[in-house]
Amino acid sequence: MASMLPPAPVIYLVEPFGGSVRRQNANTPHIFWDDAAVTRGDGIFETILIRKGEPANLEQHVERFRRSAATLDLPDPGREHWIKATREAVADYVRERGLAAEDVDAKCVWTMSRGRETTGVPTAWLTIRPIPDSVLEQRKNGVSVVTTPRGYTINRGEGGEAEVPWMRVGAKTLNYAASMAALRWARGEGYDDVIYIDPETDRVLEGATSTVVIVKKGGRLRTPKPGPGILPGTTQAALFAHAEKKGWKCKQKDMYLSELLKAESVWLVSSTRMYARVRKLNGKKLPAPDNAAEVQKLIVAALDRA
Amino acid sequence: MASMLPPAPVIYLVEPFGGSVRRQNANTPHIFWDDAAVTRGDGIFETILIRKGEPANLEQHVERFRRSAATLDLPDPGREHWIKATREAVADYVRERGLAAEDVDAKCVWTMSRGRETTGVPTAWLTIRPIPDSVLEQRKNGVSVVTTPRGYTINRGEGGEAEVPWMRVGAKTLNYAASMAALRWARGEGYDDVIYIDPETDRVLEGATSTVVIVKKGGRLRTPKPGPGILPGTTQAALFAHAEKKGWKCKQKDMYLSELLKAESVWLVSSTRMYARVRKLNGKKLPAPDNAAEVQKLIVAALDRA
Repeated sequence: MASMLPPAPVIYLVEPFGGSVRRQNANTPHIFWDDAAVTRGDGIFETILIRKGEPANLEQHVERFRRSAATLDLPDPGREHWIKATREAVADYVRERGLAAEDVDAKCVWTMSRGRETTGVPTAWLTIRPIPDSVLEQRKNGVSVVTTPRGYTINRGEGGEAEVPWMRVGAKTLNYAASMAALRWARGEGYDDVIYIDPETDRVLEGATSTVVIVKKGGRLRTPKPGPGILPGTTQAALFAHAEKKGWKCKQKDMYLSELLKAESVWLVSSTRMYARVRKLNGKKLPAPDNAAEVQKLIVAALDRA
Repeated sequence: MASMLPPAPVIYLVEPFGGSVRRQNANTPHIFWDDAAVTRGDGIFETILIRKGEPANLEQHVERFRRSAATLDLPDPGREHWIKATREAVADYVRERGLAAEDVDAKCVWTMSRGRETTGVPTAWLTIRPIPDSVLEQRKNGVSVVTTPRGYTINRGEGGEAEVPWMRVGAKTLNYAASMAALRWARGEGYDDVIYIDPETDRVLEGATSTVVIVKKGGRLRTPKPGPGILPGTTQAALFAHAEKKGWKCKQKDMYLSELLKAESVWLVSSTRMYARVRKLNGKKLPAPDNAAEVQKLIVAALDRA
């Protein structure tokens, strides 16, 4: 591996319906002009941490990916061939970097779109590449966060369900342009990240690409209950499952802005970044808790075991 | 042109910032795995009718494309090289079909995304292909439409502007998954298209991919005033400009569901389909008006002159 350039990302095309998986040259495009991912943002994705050469929390990601597909009326992406493709891609990634598997952390993304207009067959692929330095930096040093409304409301009918039958709530879709716009705005204002809140009640929703978890006195973990505007978090789920075994009291329930300010500590948890402690919220410093290292270890251990 | 297969679509890549334009083989993909169009639905588009070998209503499309870019903080796509690329692509398309230019109608789509994550340079291209048969059929026979709420509300602050500073209202973005879901639902229920309405007031917004125009007694044309939830329509703008010269009284103002039912006729106007008369609304038949052919000719003439 004497090249001056870092090795290219590893890309595998995943044929739908349990077909073959095959390596795709990262320097050659593979998506056609009439793919629904491109023309309509019509598809789903998962971001998976590769940790010490192993996909972390894999079952949670498989399950959410399949749920997202069902929600959007996409065919079931299946399970085994995604896992197989991921393992083959990780093996390539490790080998091409000349490292031992246990020394390799990376970022894996699964994507499945509704496919080309001309074929109607879903397009699916996965990529593996290094974890960006900015992510490692935020994991280490925490983040300065601004709270903000989401700017829109999903309307509800009388029974509480979505007002229109096709509204796809809870799927992890490619329609992320609004979140990206929110992050660009926040960074322009000097913040690292955002937490969405309901402006009328100050109820806490989620981060732009993460789940909010707070640590309270007495070994308690809290996260906002998933629902409209709050995607179920795979990392949060793994954390709570592991933490409960370790004696933490974990609960999903409505959370309000004032609770963030009173908590022992506030965390954004997500697959690749794992954790980023909120060290400033709306300009107010949130001091590091005594047990910061313990919480970080808890999250890492949860992912290593999931 | 003795091939058994129809000629492939014509694709041109458009280098941003006035760079070169060049033909892309339609059978070779050109979009990379890390393009913002694919990963985030983060980009803009315009659909332009090619009529008798000429791009119709070109200035309206150029202006809206540039406005959409500005709204999303994308670089200005410029003007001249898009027009140049379109004309070159149309010339290829006409030649490869062995037809006279005046016999060629087609559908042209311009797309510009925020570009590859690894380069940050916008990706831009255009495609030209036949107008789908289903579109020609709807132009000829009209459409059966169901009205429906949009399912979400863009929240407003006290001054009426968007509640959050990054909310991008009025850009024609690639985030069309919700509209596509609405159309899939409508078709499953036996309708051809949808008209979005505000469920609280029955105020009429727009079609899934079109502008609503009604014809009232006394030679009057009405369309809902553009604003939140109502994209300014290029075809409607061309129609009103031309119709006013011909003595029609044209007005943009708030419109309600009851007005659709009382109108002489209701039309969905858009670039490629041009017009589709609403012949059934929520299951209720809307009889063809005496002047249907006149209205159709007015729209075609407007586009031929724009």
